[in-house]
Amino acid sequence: MGELTLFTYDWVPEAPRGYVRDIRVRWALEEAGLPYRVKAVPFRDRKAEHFAHQPFGQVPWLTDGDISIFESGAILLYLGHLSNALLPIETRARSEAVEWLFAALNSVEMASLPWSLFVFSGYSRDTQEWKRFNEFLEARLDHLEPVLARREWLAGTFSIADILMADVLRLVDRFEKLSAHPACRGYVARATERPSFLQAHVDQIAHFALADSAESR
Amino acid sequence: MGELTLFTYDWVPEAPRGYVRDIRVRWALEEAGLPYRVKAVPFRDRKAEHFAHQPFGQVPWLTDGDISIFESGAILLYLGHLSNALLPIETRARSEAVEWLFAALNSVEMASLPWSLFVFSGYSRDTQEWKRFNEFLEARLDHLEPVLARREWLAGTFSIADILMADVLRLVDRFEKLSAHPACRGYVARATERPSFLQAHVDQIAHFALADSAESR
Repeated sequence: MGELTLFTYDWVPEAPRGYVRDIRVRWALEEAGLPYRVKAVPFRDRKAEHFAHQPFGQVPWLTDGDISIFESGAILLYLGHLSNALLPIETRARSEAVEWLFAALNSVEMASLPWSLFVFSGYSRDTQEWKRFNEFLEARLDHLEPVLARREWLAGTFSIADILMADVLRLVDRFEKLSAHPACRGYVARATERPSFLQAHVDQIAHFALADSAESR
Repeated sequence: MGELTLFTYDWVPEAPRGYVRDIRVRWALEEAGLPYRVKAVPFRDRKAEHFAHQPFGQVPWLTDGDISIFESGAILLYLGHLSNALLPIETRARSEAVEWLFAALNSVEMASLPWSLFVFSGYSRDTQEWKRFNEFLEARLDHLEPVLARREWLAGTFSIADILMADVLRLVDRFEKLSAHPACRGYVARATERPSFLQAHVDQIAHFALADSAESR
């Protein structure tokens, strides 16, 4: 392992602070106790160098010596292979952690992200489009609810699957959407009271606040 | 490795045939030349046994002896570890394949799936909602276009990243949406002319056609 460096934006508007996806990587790094530093790239004027590391112009990406990785799921999987605090060793549990990592992204966030675009954009809730996307998310939460009612963490012990799933659900919870899904809500509460999350959250907020104060000088 | 068994529905309506996600797994298995069998579960009346393997009631899932895995991304990653025809050995190329596997799901399909829901549902294209989701997809394709113009396959050699990305883009291409993105379209053509894809496609079509003929008896 070389020196781990997390890349994120130098600044973002108020609304997404605390929810920028670099928090997933910070959380994993804190959970594993892996040393890392943070570097910032321009939010407003994204350079070719940025797209060379993250082809969609987003954040985060992580470098480990010569290796550069984008996509929060891929980064967490990479970190999982560096620490047993992030990915269980036993074959079946490890396999469960990996499938739930994908499920958080491709089954739950696949429904929650479009839903959140409707919410953020303030689109009417009196359309068939809203109804369709709202039902899409509700169906996924309905299936997730009994799973989370039965277990503390998705793969037995806390893992990268929980970091991703809790971060995805946390955004839904922000808009009261988990009110009919108490097991999902309890899971988010359980995950986000971990010291590793709290540290990651404080650090992300501080990072962007620093940009504000630099700008106002 | 035990005996690999792919689980899919016993039947689906005409429209999604050739696009059901089990094709991703069939494609990977054909590409690697791994022996497997296919088992079907009811599409119309999904049992508790189904939800025990796939908590969202979807397909596919794969069993390898005692291990049962859902999520097409997780299954492909698992198969990648069984065959170098699916995942390069060299560290950097392997890391690239994994990040692009996630990018196909979480950056491209995250935009194409909501877009396809608008298209499938026949929603008006004269709304701010349509405009927003259409632009979301276009932005992702615009960023992907130069990447695919520069390389034959995402991680140097053909890998599970290409199976997922090509399958995601193939659905977009079905609705002419790749007409302004020739590199994306050429990439889909390149990927889907592989014998492994052609076999997977023929097999999926035959699988569901067999269900029709069983039903009409």
